[in-house]
Order: sequence, then structure tokens, then C-alpha cells
Amino acid sequence: MLRQVTLDDIRPIGIGAGILGTGGGGNPYLGGLHLASIIREYGPQAIIDPFDLADDALCCVVGSIGAPTVSIEKLPEGTEMCRALRLLEEHIGRRFDAVAIAEIGGANSMQPLIGGLQAGIPTVDSDSMGRAFPEIQMSSFLFDTSATAAPLAMVDAADNAAVVPAAISDVWAEKIARNIAVSMGARAGLAGTIMTGAQVKAAGVHYTLSLAHRLGAQVIEAQAQKSDVPVVVAEALDGHVIFRGKISDVERRTTKGFARGKVKISGFNPMQHLPNTLGGPRGVLEIEFQNEFLIAYLNGDVIATTPDLICIVTEEEGEPVTTEALRYGTRVAVITVPAPPQLKSEAALAVVGPRAFGYDVAFSPLPGGVIGLRPRD
Amino acid sequence: MLRQVTLDDIRPIGIGAGILGTGGGGNPYLGGLHLASIIREYGPQAIIDPFDLADDALCCVVGSIGAPTVSIEKLPEGTEMCRALRLLEEHIGRRFDAVAIAEIGGANSMQPLIGGLQAGIPTVDSDSMGRAFPEIQMSSFLFDTSATAAPLAMVDAADNAAVVPAAISDVWAEKIARNIAVSMGARAGLAGTIMTGAQVKAAGVHYTLSLAHRLGAQVIEAQAQKSDVPVVVAEALDGHVIFRGKISDVERRTTKGFARGKVKISGFNPMQHLPNTLGGPRGVLEIEFQNEFLIAYLNGDVIATTPDLICIVTEEEGEPVTTEALRYGTRVAVITVPAPPQLKSEAALAVVGPRAFGYDVAFSPLPGGVIGLRPRD
Repeated sequence: MLRQVTLDDIRPIGIGAGILGTGGGGNPYLGGLHLASIIREYGPQAIIDPFDLADDALCCVVGSIGAPTVSIEKLPEGTEMCRALRLLEEHIGRRFDAVAIAEIGGANSMQPLIGGLQAGIPTVDSDSMGRAFPEIQMSSFLFDTSATAAPLAMVDAADNAAVVPAAISDVWAEKIARNIAVSMGARAGLAGTIMTGAQVKAAGVHYTLSLAHRLGAQVIEAQAQKSDVPVVVAEALDGHVIFRGKISDVERRTTKGFARGKVKISGFNPMQHLPNTLGGPRGVLEIEFQNEFLIAYLNGDVIATTPDLICIVTEEEGEPVTTEALRYGTRVAVITVPAPPQLKSEAALAVVGPRAFGYDVAFSPLPGGVIGLRPRD
Repeated sequence: MLRQVTLDDIRPIGIGAGILGTGGGGNPYLGGLHLASIIREYGPQAIIDPFDLADDALCCVVGSIGAPTVSIEKLPEGTEMCRALRLLEEHIGRRFDAVAIAEIGGANSMQPLIGGLQAGIPTVDSDSMGRAFPEIQMSSFLFDTSATAAPLAMVDAADNAAVVPAAISDVWAEKIARNIAVSMGARAGLAGTIMTGAQVKAAGVHYTLSLAHRLGAQVIEAQAQKSDVPVVVAEALDGHVIFRGKISDVERRTTKGFARGKVKISGFNPMQHLPNTLGGPRGVLEIEFQNEFLIAYLNGDVIATTPDLICIVTEEEGEPVTTEALRYGTRVAVITVPAPPQLKSEAALAVVGPRAFGYDVAFSPLPGGVIGLRPRD
């Protein structure tokens, strides 16, 4: 696994995290530029193996909360994560030993590196999703543990701040934090989900920072070798390329702090002799998203459902396509990957299954599911 | 002035505060029932003359934040004010010596009595409006002082809580607190605007609790004597009855935590020989409201503007009519009262004048303005 994150590691982590982001979590490119400037100032960020954490170590997660569409135009001040962390420390009267990753997907893979580096504590190679999800309660750190989302602390790019000392449930913590984020311009830094080292070890989706890094490095190598990058991505994640085509429609609206919508992808026309040999079925693939890609329909039939990963990459370069970057005409490949087992328990599905997002669709698991289970290098 | 508030004082305070509420601040009847149950448990609440506060005494305001329309159906748990106060004390690490009144208008006249009694500290006979206003920054405690709305603490009827430790301005504190209130079901208890005794003395609209009490007592007496109650109300406040008529239209919507709308009152038809002798002009009076009555138009011309008080009372009983209680067919009298001078400075008008509420109307002050200036008994 990764022992530290240097300038050279940012690009691969960004690509890998972007793909694992299943369209959400914010643009990892901007987060990566930000991390680079912080590493130039402070040096590399130390990464800690979750199993090297003391059982009584004090950890929390940090991340950006808001609408990804907003995060492209509204840049951070830069110290949000560290300020949120310090505010939470001040509130509870204790210091954190390490910062865990809320979601490995998208820019939120970068935030715990930035925040940890600024605060002088290591980042744990473990996240709570193995992907990205739009809401705070959608976290393996919360599904089957005594940890709670609140107390949590939030700051914006100016000097506005808020603390949620207690909430009756993690869903209520999310509701309150989301409304605070809206009042902070749909973008805020958040620190919360206080855990012991023992809880991180028991509940985390481990080694996902290393996984993102390895995945990104393989994409970069495959690009250099002109390989079929989407296939390399799918193999690296034990998933499959299920579709190739051109984006033919995007329906999008930003409401209540979320980017919601639907993307339609039309399969390449075989009459034009386009390279569709590995692309599987033709026709039309439709994907519903709420910050992240959640349900895929092939010619009207459900073929992949949250929490399984639905990833869109550019057809040629295999680079992640986030929901806010969806554009008519882009040639893409769609990859599905079975979710880590932590997201598929009954308790977890009640929070991250299709019905939790308001779709009247049952979860039909893709076979497999090994994300984050093992450190491979 | 009042030295304590007993069970007998609740009804007059409720009536007086309801009239001073200019339609907003929540239903004082429900707040009064709540206060009665607390007084039965703890005894009378001590009232302190603002000028008896030590200069270095620590004070804050407490009140309910949300939409009045919601407060009719969603009752409080009962200890919101005290819990918000304690949460704020915990946050700043100091205890409060007294609680001031954010708005004398409506139920928020009762909340500082309830909260102070539960917390064991006196309530100051001084508020920041001499009426009611919908937003936190609309406070004489903030207009020309170094006090700030944040830090503030909020709790709901369950165990949800939030602290806003800092905000870049009082308007931003309001934005964040309002969104938190929305996520708490459009009703929450709030403690904030931390001040010294010296600041309360310098900036408050004084003796308004006593004024509400005296006004309510005069209304009760006038009702018993079958006097013309609206005239008694107007004289007690150095204001005028400007219109009498029947509510002929109410347009209302609850958005972003506010009750907004417009009420149309049609003057009594002289052909029906109704008692309109003291009612002034006939025709149609229209009043715009945003929680409170803000602008009055007589036959299309502006005749009263915020921060001057526009009060609606029932024509027969002289009881206050709140915006959420506006009903087609109710016979009412409309009374205007010049605002206290603290609300009419340039800094104040920028926050509570008609343009601050989005109306393209200049403030044209009613002559006079003595609310709260003197203790009369």
C-alpha cells in the first residue's frame, strides 16, 4: 500500500478516485491542484495502514459537502478541512490522531490528504464507501457501529462556521448539515463521524486510497500504450465494461444542494464500423444520478443498481466523467463494479440501496465484490 | 414597571405583545399557556430593570425561530429556550446573568420568560424591536453596537442541536440559522446576540415588557366596559386607528421558513349603517406581510411603512390578529404606531426599512415615536 502521497501520486489518485467516484464527490482535478500546492508547502502526506491505528486512537472524517456543480465555479479558500477539524477538536476538547476518508470518490479523496497535512496528522488508507455517495449517513463507519455523524463541524470559505453537537439520527445530522451547506453557498468543509481506531478497523472499506492510486497508474500506463483503457479499468476493479456509446441527452437540475438528473447514452451505430467489439450490447443506456450514478437501465431494463458501482469513463482515454461534466456527444464507456460487502448488509441497503434514493427498484447485486479488501502492493 | 411575571400577568402580556407583534412573532396564546405551566412549576419570573444590570453583566437573547404558521401545529417540547441557552453557555464557557428579549411581539415575548425561569436567571425589561421582525439581524442590539448575532445556539423539540460559532455578518448568521431552522422542521429555539449589561442599556428598546402588560390590561378593561377597544389600543401606543373593515382576501404562502402574503381589507359599507364613525377613510386597505405586517396601502397609496408598526386587531374585542390567523370575513381595525427611534437611524433603516424587505418604497415616518422610552408605572 501507499506509505505517503507525493506530488507524483496526485495524478494517479485523482484518476482512480474519479473513476471510483461513480460520477460524484466533486471534480478530482481541482482537488488535486489544491493538494499539489499544499504538498509543495508542507511536503508529502503520511498514510497510515488502518491496522496500524491504536484501538483507542481518535479519528474522524473530513470532506467537502455541497453540490459538485457548484464546486467547479466556487473555489475553496483552502483551509476549510483543517479549520473544520480544529473546530471539531475545540468542540469536543480532544485532538485527533488521524483523519479517515469519508468517500474515496472524486475530490473527497483529496480533502482528507489536504486536511491531514495542514493539521499535521496522517490520513488513514480506509474510507467508508469504496466509491462516492451524496449523503453523510451513507457510510460504512455508521452502518453497524456505535459511531454517529454528529458532533460535526462545518466552515465555509469566509468566516462562517457551524457545529452540530448532537442529532437524533445520522439522517437528521445530514438534513441539518445539508441546509447549513446550502446557506454557505452549497459548498462547505465538514469534519465529523468521530471514531476510535478500533471502529475504523472494524467498519472501514480498507486500502481504497492505494486502490485509487494503483487504478490511476494503470490507466496512465494503458493510455501510453494505446491499450483499450476502459477494459483495463474494468479488470483493475474486477468489473465489466457493459456499454459503449455517445451521450445523446443530459437532463440536469441542482436542487436542495444536489445535482440530480438522467443521462442517456446511445450505443455506437454498427453501420459506421466504430470500435464496439468489447462494448457488449447496443441500444440505449440510461443512468439516473443524484450527485452519483445510481441506476442503469439498458433499453429500459434495470441492469445495475446502487450500491454497486456504475462508472462512466471516456471511451478513448478511460478518464472519469463526473455528473457535472456530462456533455452531449462525449464518447464514453460504462463500467459496473460490485460494491464492497460492507455496503450490502441489510442495514447498509436500507441506507444506500435503490429505495433509499426514492427509486422503486430492488437491489440486484452484481456477482463478486472485493473492493478494498486487500492491500496488493 | 413590572417586577415579576405571575400567572395573572400572562393574559395581559399576551394581548399586548400580540398587538405589538404587528402580526408576527408567533401566536402569543400558545406561548402564554406554555409560560403558565412553567410558572406553576417554578413560581413567578423575576424581571430586571435594564438600568439595574451591571455594566459587565453577561446577557443574550432567546427566542423561537421559524414560521408562525408552523408553530400553531408543531408544539414545542418545552425546554428549547433553556437548552439553547445552556448550549450557548457551554460553547462560550461562561454563564449568563440575565436574558433579554429579542422581540416583544407575539410568542417571542413569552420565550425569554420561560427560558429565564427554567435557567434560573431574570428577564430584562428590554427588547430589540419594540415590535416583531422576521430576521435575526433586525435588532437594535446589533444596529449600532459591537455585539454580533453569532455565536448562537439552536435546538429543536428532539435532540438535534446546532451552534454557529462565527459568521461574517449578522445577515449571514441569519441565513445559516434560518436554514438550520428549516431542517429542524421550521421551528427551533435559539439563543444568541451575546451582550454586556452596558450594551443592553445603550441599545435596547426599554420597558417594552411592561408596555405590553399595561396595554393588555387596558384592552381587558376596555372589553369589560364595552369601550371602543381599538381606540383604547391606539391611544395606549400613541398611535391611530387608520381603518376599519372586513377581511376580503388573503394571499398566503410559507416559503423558506417565512409566512409571506398580502391581506385585503374592505371598508364597511356605509349603506349598511355599520359603526364606522371612528374608522377614518373608506375604500380598500391592502397590507403586505412577511411574518409581520410591513406596508399598508390605502386605495393603492402607501400610508404606513416598516419599521413603523402596523397592527391589526379584531374590531369588537381589540384582540391582536396574527398573520397566520387572518381569515376571510373577520371584522378588524388597523392601527399604526410610530416606531421607536432606535429603528429609524440610517443604519437601522438599511436593515428594517421597506427596501430591506424588497419593496421599492421609501420609509415615510409617522409622526411621534415613544415606544419603550419610559417606565410608566
